[in-house]
Amino acid sequence: MDILLCGNFDADERQSWQQALAQALPEGRWLDLDEARAQPAAVQAAVVANPPPGSLQGLPALRLIQSLWAGVDRLLADATLPPGVPIARMVDPAMSAAMAQTALWATLALQRGFFGYARQQRQRLWRQHGQRRADECPVLVLGQGEIGGAVAQALARTGFPVTGWSRRAGEARGGVRRVAGAAALWQELPGAQVLVNLLPLTEATAGILDARLFAALPHGAGLVNLARGRHVVDADLLAALDRSQVGHAVLDVFHPEPLPPEHPFWTHERVTVLPHVAAQTDERSAAAVVAANLRALREGREPLHRVDRRTGY
Amino acid sequence: MDILLCGNFDADERQSWQQALAQALPEGRWLDLDEARAQPAAVQAAVVANPPPGSLQGLPALRLIQSLWAGVDRLLADATLPPGVPIARMVDPAMSAAMAQTALWATLALQRGFFGYARQQRQRLWRQHGQRRADECPVLVLGQGEIGGAVAQALARTGFPVTGWSRRAGEARGGVRRVAGAAALWQELPGAQVLVNLLPLTEATAGILDARLFAALPHGAGLVNLARGRHVVDADLLAALDRSQVGHAVLDVFHPEPLPPEHPFWTHERVTVLPHVAAQTDERSAAAVVAANLRALREGREPLHRVDRRTGY
Repeated sequence: MDILLCGNFDADERQSWQQALAQALPEGRWLDLDEARAQPAAVQAAVVANPPPGSLQGLPALRLIQSLWAGVDRLLADATLPPGVPIARMVDPAMSAAMAQTALWATLALQRGFFGYARQQRQRLWRQHGQRRADECPVLVLGQGEIGGAVAQALARTGFPVTGWSRRAGEARGGVRRVAGAAALWQELPGAQVLVNLLPLTEATAGILDARLFAALPHGAGLVNLARGRHVVDADLLAALDRSQVGHAVLDVFHPEPLPPEHPFWTHERVTVLPHVAAQTDERSAAAVVAANLRALREGREPLHRVDRRTGY
Repeated sequence: MDILLCGNFDADERQSWQQALAQALPEGRWLDLDEARAQPAAVQAAVVANPPPGSLQGLPALRLIQSLWAGVDRLLADATLPPGVPIARMVDPAMSAAMAQTALWATLALQRGFFGYARQQRQRLWRQHGQRRADECPVLVLGQGEIGGAVAQALARTGFPVTGWSRRAGEARGGVRRVAGAAALWQELPGAQVLVNLLPLTEATAGILDARLFAALPHGAGLVNLARGRHVVDADLLAALDRSQVGHAVLDVFHPEPLPPEHPFWTHERVTVLPHVAAQTDERSAAAVVAANLRALREGREPLHRVDRRTGY
């Protein structure tokens, strides 16, 4: 099987992916963009990580586009994407586990005031503050797909009362209370001490973390954005932080990335900036996920984790 | 029952404890030190939090000393402590849960490099580093009493390979591998990516975190000290940090406390200083624990969590 491997990685990253993929699917022939263009009719599948727009045009035998990333908003924004070819998202349990770790770390820090103690350390200030129990710190997780669901369950296992919100109703699992729909979101926000965002970026969710939403949270609530920078209206978040309506924000994603050096998030004392590392795709486990979908393609089965182009995830 | 309530708390803290205790044991009469001295023969029990040395002398009817803190090293250092009177430590599930949260937060941050990303933020540096899975980050927990055991199990539940070390052998629980004795400690150190200290402070454990121990860890290992400042030889830790033998240290306890403003831990870029807040005694749950032991005393039963004065815990 001839497979185009194409993305915005550097030479080392590309080699590392190619090794992991070759090990997971020894029968695959991995082509770069130039090789694929030289024999377009041979390319049956494309494994991509934010490929340059236009990369997937003119491949008449293409039957699967497999993303190496969980978020496909940049991929879907390419107007030249061949219609009708199935697109699959990366859904890797190792990535969900990594995201759950980051969310748990951030939520524990918000619950227990550890970001505040880090500020005190810079002032050499020895001062103890009250301690909240986990059951006094309800968490609202936006997005209940594979990743949001895994995050919510990890938080619930650690003792937090967790509500998982999504656009559409779903089954409650692992001690997580499930709610769905716009009205439920506005009902839940006033009770959330910590808000964790893991929504897909779509037209419906872009800018959802705005002044109106922040105002609906209890005063001093924590925000953890692990999804996309464009979910946040930056100016609204800065205003909410400055009047302590949002007590602290942990941000892993920005618009644009890398976060420009002059952006006020870098130096705001109640913002934690991570350079988009909440959950990196783990080549070792992701390669196995890719290989399973390529084998499904060869055997005429439906790929797993197919993207609905209308909803965008 | 007449009970001396005595410790190094301020007026607000004293009032808050007295309210919680009165609610948990309505039949108790709570005396301060002056009131107890005025009627020494009436005092049957003392509930204490690092009381001034000598406070517990000359109380002929005293039959129980109940500490509000889990660590009793300062209490036992009082040479005037009446011999033969049982001493009970505070063992409060809410305190164990708080300690587990702090250990989990610190271990996740060490595993995933979040302290390093905080340093990068201060330099406005956008740079991604590799990501370790939890199973690639073995944790060694020193101390497997009530608190150390709860911490080890919480870490194991989150996916870390956890070994619990104690002086004496004990039963393995909750996915934690148990080892015991001095030889085992030296065997385990080279495999520990994170070392969490929850030992009691005794003559045998004071200064245990020294140059020799740090040298036995893998290069760049993380240290989390949540027990007592005197477990650490500060100069040895600073030297180990400066050559990155210890990659980062999270320290909640110091010798002396408060940590003096001129101490190098405050400003060391690879030290996180917490002001002894890893697990504060929660008055609500601790008062119930105290009341249960005072009722045991009245009914002639042995108190729970009695301290062995020879071993010091």
